[in-house]
Amino acid sequence: MPSVRVVLVEPKNEGNVGAIARAMKNFGVEDLVLVRPCPLGAEARQRAMHGADILARARTVHDVAEATADLDLLVATSGIDTDNEKKFARIAIPPRELAAKVAAFTGRVGILLGREDFGLRDEEIRACDLLVTIPASKGYPILNVSHAAAILLYELHAVHGPDTKSRSASGFEKETLHEAFGALMASTDYPAHKSARTKVMFRRLIGRAIPTKWEFHALIGVLQRATNRIKRLERDR
Amino acid sequence: MPSVRVVLVEPKNEGNVGAIARAMKNFGVEDLVLVRPCPLGAEARQRAMHGADILARARTVHDVAEATADLDLLVATSGIDTDNEKKFARIAIPPRELAAKVAAFTGRVGILLGREDFGLRDEEIRACDLLVTIPASKGYPILNVSHAAAILLYELHAVHGPDTKSRSASGFEKETLHEAFGALMASTDYPAHKSARTKVMFRRLIGRAIPTKWEFHALIGVLQRATNRIKRLERDR
Repeated sequence: MPSVRVVLVEPKNEGNVGAIARAMKNFGVEDLVLVRPCPLGAEARQRAMHGADILARARTVHDVAEATADLDLLVATSGIDTDNEKKFARIAIPPRELAAKVAAFTGRVGILLGREDFGLRDEEIRACDLLVTIPASKGYPILNVSHAAAILLYELHAVHGPDTKSRSASGFEKETLHEAFGALMASTDYPAHKSARTKVMFRRLIGRAIPTKWEFHALIGVLQRATNRIKRLERDR
Repeated sequence: MPSVRVVLVEPKNEGNVGAIARAMKNFGVEDLVLVRPCPLGAEARQRAMHGADILARARTVHDVAEATADLDLLVATSGIDTDNEKKFARIAIPPRELAAKVAAFTGRVGILLGREDFGLRDEEIRACDLLVTIPASKGYPILNVSHAAAILLYELHAVHGPDTKSRSASGFEKETLHEAFGALMASTDYPAHKSARTKVMFRRLIGRAIPTKWEFHALIGVLQRATNRIKRLERDR
């Protein structure tokens, strides 16, 4: 299993934070980072039970970027799924599919869980490689955040994936690819109003594919060759 | 899905009862029976959220027999698995196997969840047809009871209906994308000896990502724009 970090974004209820620390202990995940959390006191510790050590070692940071800078694959969670294919930033995979992907991954994985009331903001979701939604009743699909965490951690733990292949790529290679894709778009004067959407589309698609190091380099190579060709031709015009 | 009842045996914490009512609402299970519960007040209702109706309609009974008399299949839950084959009453199946069995069953199913501290007593477990244990860390396998309930209800719900969206794209769109990728490579004078490998790399990567129709079109658009740009610039040279 790759190293997994749970990132709680602005949790408002200390009991939920404690309950998530317990669930982490139950499923063997130790790394908890809190972004601007509510104060944590006796209730959080009590709910954490034997996960109190995870709670005590949790890092508190000021923003999501700080919580995730050293991670290779970012997974957003949302209780709201969409049937609209154009809202691709909101197209989600189920937890079991996530578990299979993560099992085949050797980098560092971060799972972002949002606020109890608002969840994650659109821009926080867009910055992630994958979006996961837990299939639930259409009438009331919004789970308690600690229940959502427990189900995701259960799936990550339950999967007995094949031995990890060379499906690792560092966050560095990933960002280089996305920069190369953005640079190619820019070199074609891609319409500005569509540009952000198309970049998120590409990020989701690559997030689902989880390329190997070799695949990253080959794909970056093709995109950079095309961009360089366009630039050289324009310069020589 | 057969009709499922959740039976809580002597719950001690009203917050857990409320949280379980919420999880039931999330996963479309409505029938809650409480055996000698703690008093239920504001905290239970608050934790139940939109599951408050399930909580309000929950029946309270004096013993497990009364809670289960009209059921056809009784499922006990335990956080303690055993390696001792002689303790056959404690030999458990995992939640996914339970979900498969329940999906193939047409009678009424009861899921018994025990006390927060002692779980179910041996005689309560022996009276059940099946025992389920959620696979967890050996160091601390005891889940919060509402987390256990959420995971079991999630598995019962997940076994029904296709969760995955219509991530369909026709073979036509797929081949158009691969042609566009090939054309872009060709327009950059991509080395011939590497070209076939890189095309296969891209095909595998797209195969894993399973893009939607919309994603195909957006990606084809970017690649064709770049190729057209290169061609126009070369023609005008």
